[in-house]
Amino acid sequence: MTTASAVPKSPRRGRPGYDQDSVLEIAVQVFNRHGYDATSMGMLAVELGVSKSAIYHHVPSKGDLLRLALDEALVPLEAIGEDERAQKGGTIERLEFILRSTIRVLIDRQPYVTLLLRLRGNTEIERDALQRRRTVDHKIVDLVVAAQAEGKVRSDVEPRTTTRLMFGMINSLVEWYRPEGPVSPAQVEENAIAMIVDGLRARD
Amino acid sequence: MTTASAVPKSPRRGRPGYDQDSVLEIAVQVFNRHGYDATSMGMLAVELGVSKSAIYHHVPSKGDLLRLALDEALVPLEAIGEDERAQKGGTIERLEFILRSTIRVLIDRQPYVTLLLRLRGNTEIERDALQRRRTVDHKIVDLVVAAQAEGKVRSDVEPRTTTRLMFGMINSLVEWYRPEGPVSPAQVEENAIAMIVDGLRARD
Repeated sequence: MTTASAVPKSPRRGRPGYDQDSVLEIAVQVFNRHGYDATSMGMLAVELGVSKSAIYHHVPSKGDLLRLALDEALVPLEAIGEDERAQKGGTIERLEFILRSTIRVLIDRQPYVTLLLRLRGNTEIERDALQRRRTVDHKIVDLVVAAQAEGKVRSDVEPRTTTRLMFGMINSLVEWYRPEGPVSPAQVEENAIAMIVDGLRARD
Repeated sequence: MTTASAVPKSPRRGRPGYDQDSVLEIAVQVFNRHGYDATSMGMLAVELGVSKSAIYHHVPSKGDLLRLALDEALVPLEAIGEDERAQKGGTIERLEFILRSTIRVLIDRQPYVTLLLRLRGNTEIERDALQRRRTVDHKIVDLVVAAQAEGKVRSDVEPRTTTRLMFGMINSLVEWYRPEGPVSPAQVEENAIAMIVDGLRARD
């Protein structure tokens, strides 16, 4: 193995070495293609064009790879709630900030969020990640409840259902949205926020 | 095997016989649990507690089971577009009819729609089903275009993106919604339509 500093950022199979980020980038693709459970360290080694022991040089186990990959999605998603703009100001504005920021993380970290959204919860690492995701979701349910109490969100929607429907819409981006496609990330963000906050109906 | 008329509607493993509907009901569960590709006729036989030849008594192949299961989702989804209420009247009302009807099919045919939404397109039967699903989607894109041209849908959204976002929201129901849960099918339908058509923001 070469040292990390000597390694290109996006290596192809058969190149001599990888840093941990590059291993992670390829591992997440393999996990998403075959499913985490069905992926072995041997399959990853074949995909990377290195020996199994070379992978173990970077990460002690498949579980550690999973944990690192999930952090690539969870750390920025958790950071949204810690941002001042999610904590201060009008409830609708805070909700909009969280939704816009989530869309950006989904587009920016697409393969890692895909991995997170497809988790089954079969292992401790998966269950821990799902718990962290639920904590993020609960804060948003609380915000919808607060916005309703203030009269800023319509009173005829149920906060938990609303949160799941909003995230159903936003999370679907990882399955169909292509940043290189005809609609820019900024446009898809505006489109989603327009629909969620004000609806499709034209107003005069 | 007993004849179809002698068979209970929801049989359990080990009971002597099944009709085609019951085989289908169990097959779709196994497909959703393990994935279609990973499911063998042998696995289905074990799940049903019958011999492989008993399954072949009902359906000639695994592909036929898939096709029948996908029809359970696609036939009612396609019927929505054929309904008079999808074809006549105001564009917003037609869109709302289609969305409400789709939500009902998703809840009513949950396992079959789940199977449809998870298709990879590896076989001819899968590609055919995906093509039928795209045809349904295209009609809705056309309706959003028409509604915009009439000034009924806001002009700042992109019809194709809007359609994908709407269906991202609605399709997510198959993953998280439980009809026996605290929110009734009618409530979840109202909540989704309220958000899509008029948005979350309270109006005086």
